[in-house]
Amino acid sequence: MENKPKITIVKIGGNIIDNEQLLSDFLNDFSELKEAKILIHGGGKTATEIAEKLNLKPLFSNGRRITDKAMLDVTVMTYSGLLNKQIVAQLQALKTNAIGFSGADGNVILSEKRKNSEVDFGFVGDVISVNKELISMLLLQNITPVFSAITHDGNGQLLNTNADTIASEIAISLSNAFDVNLIYCFEKKGVLSNSEDEASVIEEINFEKYSILKEQKIIHSGMLPKLENCFKSLSNGVQNILIGNQNVLKNSTIHTKIKL
Amino acid sequence: MENKPKITIVKIGGNIIDNEQLLSDFLNDFSELKEAKILIHGGGKTATEIAEKLNLKPLFSNGRRITDKAMLDVTVMTYSGLLNKQIVAQLQALKTNAIGFSGADGNVILSEKRKNSEVDFGFVGDVISVNKELISMLLLQNITPVFSAITHDGNGQLLNTNADTIASEIAISLSNAFDVNLIYCFEKKGVLSNSEDEASVIEEINFEKYSILKEQKIIHSGMLPKLENCFKSLSNGVQNILIGNQNVLKNSTIHTKIKL
Repeated sequence: MENKPKITIVKIGGNIIDNEQLLSDFLNDFSELKEAKILIHGGGKTATEIAEKLNLKPLFSNGRRITDKAMLDVTVMTYSGLLNKQIVAQLQALKTNAIGFSGADGNVILSEKRKNSEVDFGFVGDVISVNKELISMLLLQNITPVFSAITHDGNGQLLNTNADTIASEIAISLSNAFDVNLIYCFEKKGVLSNSEDEASVIEEINFEKYSILKEQKIIHSGMLPKLENCFKSLSNGVQNILIGNQNVLKNSTIHTKIKL
Repeated sequence: MENKPKITIVKIGGNIIDNEQLLSDFLNDFSELKEAKILIHGGGKTATEIAEKLNLKPLFSNGRRITDKAMLDVTVMTYSGLLNKQIVAQLQALKTNAIGFSGADGNVILSEKRKNSEVDFGFVGDVISVNKELISMLLLQNITPVFSAITHDGNGQLLNTNADTIASEIAISLSNAFDVNLIYCFEKKGVLSNSEDEASVIEEINFEKYSILKEQKIIHSGMLPKLENCFKSLSNGVQNILIGNQNVLKNSTIHTKIKL
């Protein structure tokens, strides 16, 4: 299996989405990748801003955010509409033949509404399956799929889904056929040993080190599910995972490499 | 050229989009078509309602509506986001493997910003070309493309484009390879000889009859560009064109047939 084709799968977060210049620079780097590639994007502040303008009040239950019908609509409009199409149009201008996808398009990501006895999270979906045949077919045609963090339940219901998880599930689904390079871009240069110090990037984290860093509470809150996604991906065939900022596609950049 | 495969291309307007039950019934009929099929949808009232909630004032110049940046964003969110993804999710539930497209996705509809010496219409695009190779490839894979009325200029700019024209241009582009059946669904049962009387559907209109009806002002305003799109399509290889309401896919329904 040494001659599997390479693919780079990049997830970008709000800090890039929200900044026109960062997004433009990032898309430029992304479009220059020669191998097959996939982009997954979150939503950034736009959805929150539009929800505020529409006078929607964020709902919480037991301190957890709830996606009600009105908020789901705003999320679908913003993620799968405005942001996804702006990214696709910019990639087309860079001669990368992108097609934007929600999970409903081509039944590409099927999910189920999150069940939880204590909290009803509303229209939030957990991934059940990825249509890797369709994605592979598109990649063979030199098409670059661009995913927003919206999925569907197969019964006509759209669902809001974590973009990190979508990236991880897509990476896993393609790891049989491709040598997968999975990259998470966020606001820091990598996983930091001191959250106040951008110079404290940890170069490499394996599962043992992760357990220690977690125990010591050096890694906490949002970084925990992100790293657990990474280990799940590595355990399921993904070859290579990096966490870094918008410059992570530039070879010389500081970043954190995740290993088993 | 007698054994070209059949394709049905349907454009649905605001009256169907705005009514949940009509849309659901229509998508049911559409999903039962056995041949290759494409759906093009307009926007209905949703974009206007959202623009109002966001306190955007419609802009006019010399009596013509102008699409400024803020209104374009609302249009992209609504057409390519909310409506397109809701339609795609519903078609998936009906086992029709739909993929939603703006013109930017797969560079499928390239347009140019409308130039007019008297009025600047803003971010409105006129179709330059259709990527028929991509559409044909998807149709061969049994995929049903669903187009919103948003295109791009190839330089990163999204543009608002007339949905009737998109339907017509797609139909023309596929007419070499397919026996094309183009259907325009709107709020009436067909072209009426008396706009007050739903029973006055004109069964068939050819170019000669059109010229007379236009002269007599029986056909006027919005129906003129719609019919001109039809004649352009027929002159460029489209086989069959019908205008009717949401029941037009049911064989027995009253409608208007357009001929050269």
